[in-house]
Amino acid sequence: MSKEFTHIDQNKPTMVDVGDKAETKRTAIAQSIVQLPEEMKAHIAEGEIKTLKGPVFQTAIIAGIQGAKRTSELIPLCHNLPLSKVEIDIKLLENLRVEITCEARTFGKTGVEMEALTGASVAALTVYDMCKAFSQDIEIQNTRLIKKTGGKSDFSQA
Amino acid sequence: MSKEFTHIDQNKPTMVDVGDKAETKRTAIAQSIVQLPEEMKAHIAEGEIKTLKGPVFQTAIIAGIQGAKRTSELIPLCHNLPLSKVEIDIKLLENLRVEITCEARTFGKTGVEMEALTGASVAALTVYDMCKAFSQDIEIQNTRLIKKTGGKSDFSQA
Amino acid sequence: MSKEFTHIDQNKPTMVDVGDKAETKRTAIAQSIVQLPEEMKAHIAEGEIKTLKGPVFQTAIIAGIQGAKRTSELIPLCHNLPLSKVEIDIKLLENLRVEITCEARTFGKTGVEMEALTGASVAALTVYDMCKAFSQDIEIQNTRLIKKTGGKSDFSQA
Amino acid sequence: MSKEFTHIDQNKPTMVDVGDKAETKRTAIAQSIVQLPEEMKAHIAEGEIKTLKGPVFQTAIIAGIQGAKRTSELIPLCHNLPLSKVEIDIKLLENLRVEITCEARTFGKTGVEMEALTGASVAALTVYDMCKAFSQDIEIQNTRLIKKTGGKSDFSQA
Amino acid sequence: MSKEFTHIDQNKPTMVDVGDKAETKRTAIAQSIVQLPEEMKAHIAEGEIKTLKGPVFQTAIIAGIQGAKRTSELIPLCHNLPLSKVEIDIKLLENLRVEITCEARTFGKTGVEMEALTGASVAALTVYDMCKAFSQDIEIQNTRLIKKTGGKSDFSQA
Amino acid sequence: MSKEFTHIDQNKPTMVDVGDKAETKRTAIAQSIVQLPEEMKAHIAEGEIKTLKGPVFQTAIIAGIQGAKRTSELIPLCHNLPLSKVEIDIKLLENLRVEITCEARTFGKTGVEMEALTGASVAALTVYDMCKAFSQDIEIQNTRLIKKTGGKSDFSQA
Repeated sequence: MSKEFTHIDQNKPTMVDVGDKAETKRTAIAQSIVQLPEEMKAHIAEGEIKTLKGPVFQTAIIAGIQGAKRTSELIPLCHNLPLSKVEIDIKLLENLRVEITCEARTFGKTGVEMEALTGASVAALTVYDMCKAFSQDIEIQNTRLIKKTGGKSDFSQA
Repeated sequence: MSKEFTHIDQNKPTMVDVGDKAETKRTAIAQSIVQLPEEMKAHIAEGEIKTLKGPVFQTAIIAGIQGAKRTSELIPLCHNLPLSKVEIDIKLLENLRVEITCEARTFGKTGVEMEALTGASVAALTVYDMCKAFSQDIEIQNTRLIKKTGGKSDFSQA
Repeated sequence: MSKEFTHIDQNKPTMVDVGDKAETKRTAIAQSIVQLPEEMKAHIAEGEIKTLKGPVFQTAIIAGIQGAKRTSELIPLCHNLPLSKVEIDIKLLENLRVEITCEARTFGKTGVEMEALTGASVAALTVYDMCKAFSQDIEIQNTRLIKKTGGKSDFSQA
Repeated sequence: MSKEFTHIDQNKPTMVDVGDKAETKRTAIAQSIVQLPEEMKAHIAEGEIKTLKGPVFQTAIIAGIQGAKRTSELIPLCHNLPLSKVEIDIKLLENLRVEITCEARTFGKTGVEMEALTGASVAALTVYDMCKAFSQDIEIQNTRLIKKTGGKSDFSQA
Repeated sequence: MSKEFTHIDQNKPTMVDVGDKAETKRTAIAQSIVQLPEEMKAHIAEGEIKTLKGPVFQTAIIAGIQGAKRTSELIPLCHNLPLSKVEIDIKLLENLRVEITCEARTFGKTGVEMEALTGASVAALTVYDMCKAFSQDIEIQNTRLIKKTGGKSDFSQA
Repeated sequence: MSKEFTHIDQNKPTMVDVGDKAETKRTAIAQSIVQLPEEMKAHIAEGEIKTLKGPVFQTAIIAGIQGAKRTSELIPLCHNLPLSKVEIDIKLLENLRVEITCEARTFGKTGVEMEALTGASVAALTVYDMCKAFSQDIEIQNTRLIKKTGGKSDFSQA
């Protein structure tokens, strides 16, 4: 109808149609590693790190869960969907490496990889925030998908 | 795979899995009472309170509805879910007591008690905000669940 | 139970109950026109407008998609629901008129007109924001629904 | 340090630095017109429109104020800043035209045009939402800046 | 300019202008009491309540802090402003009464009563959410302002 | 006044008081590396990656800027503050490594490290989201602070 002068966007951002995809149970597990600085050693006790800002892992777990629920607000082309479960687990490995695992679940038309990855990332950033008063030599490493079920194809880290 | 040094969180925050719960019609009604100060008496007319900030109850109703929709952002371990209805009712009882009732409904796997309670609470806080220029002697009292249907068990305030 | 003194709100805001409406595939297409000022002519190239703030249409498309997903937070009595698709298209018509089209889809109990209209409006506001350094003589015109399917009745702009 | 293969973004989106701009009192007034359909005539009384969803203008004013406060979340390259005032005014003109005016104020380093325009737009969308049950022949017209003071240059609609 | 047919809103919602108020250090302390049911007694240990959803008070403190920061999104006519401090304290009193105290601080043109009250309320709702699996006989009581300094007049609960 | 039964939280989460810190110009630069899979090679052209979801880097830059502005909502104990600048830069290095740099600035009482780190992380997650249809063998690596000025002490990555 309108006389077109020129068409914008050969390659434009789009939130693709998932309306015809099957609704299935979908799960995803993502992981993030935080490398803490030597300075933190003195503050670890009973599997938790205590700082002036409070207990690091408890706070990070809550932040990560809330972050996972807001994934579609943060990642522009993600579909918003109700999550049936979000669980975050934090382990302190050797050499001050913190391993954050986030599992997300839904029953729906799209996978929940981004929800799991966002949950792990926000938890990792919260660990950073609570430890940075001791040293800024902190690094968030190896954020990646570990496992995924449901949808067209499953995935599992080799 | 990773050699575990120590495991964090004997008792960690978790958004529990509701994936296997039945989808049913669920309703919840919550209530909050706001005790207004004597100073407000002069400002009540035709069932509304008029202030420099505007009509108190109309504004509180809208705030409460919007608050109910954002429950899962505010309450860390709440599941996000689409609400099919939110209705807030406000009555002015004797002795300057304001009774706020919030009803929430969904068709889903979790109850909507927190949505109803959050809607009532945000409406009550808005009443507070709009009346506080007259006096800070305001109190939000008795926020509680009145009724709940759907899910494993119904509930009704004795 | 409580002795009622007076009842507030003959005509109060309500998020109406859609619990008994049929779940169907629903689509809506909305449109917004932005009239740019003469000053923009020099900045148009290859179907895009380049400004100090960056590429106008790419940015507006992303903002509009994200805005559509947040409709229920912005419009008080809108139901929150998962969108299966949001697509925004921008064309530069004659006389510096920018035509923004937003299509939203869901499978649910309410229409998605407001999602499409909000997506188009937020994209239009973003175009405004990125061009306003050149001139404030910009106007957002004719935001309206073009088409709607699903639900009780279809609609199509004459 | 890192050997660069290729540099992305000749023209990338940027939130420009306003750190060196002067802090001044800034105001902006924006306007939006909503053209209502004939069907609404029967529902207008005492300067308000009463619908099943509630009073249209009261609800739109609140939505617009809240929208203005969230401008920097919606418009990607807008700076977030505290607003010292948001006021929305709605008039019903001849021929079912609704005139929405939004004034925003701050003391800061950037103008508040986008806040005023976003407030007017969200109020207009809310009017649409509450009237659309009667007819979808509604149009949001002529959203534009009316006046602006503070900053490098003032502006006033001719 | 536009011929006015009728003017809406004798008493409309407004976010009042605080542009000319003095910038001062402002603090506010609010309190909320949560009455827990008898069933919770068995779950209290070392000043914390342990539930399947995790530690109640740790989670509630974080939720309350985050809620306080979002006050202006929840309460329609509240000004958005940067908070310099939010601290939430939780004590378990006799008879299963939980006392939640929230202190908010800013340097600015408006008081932070609503921020303190919102923080206490969101923390109280979180306590409710985490205990409700045991019994719905929980009540949030006596949310009120305890103290306020800065601004035109100080306040202290008698 | 209230008889205390037991005090919760030896080590509780707190948003520390920055009210007495000096207001200075503060900047922070953070970096994140995304390792793309071999499959992406065919989709790189002119410093951008084109996918069915749209241009990867343009979208990631916008997502990162918006993410930086919402840092205080995501990281529980972060102070909310107005940012005067956010800039994200993306370079494609050798071996399909994407280098994301985010610079944040403010004039205020707290540093903006978390804003820079959150901006880089959200941009990295967006890159992941847009490339994952090709392969899930993507890894976000080495998110860390590069430089920081203003406040008590400067920092620069060795």
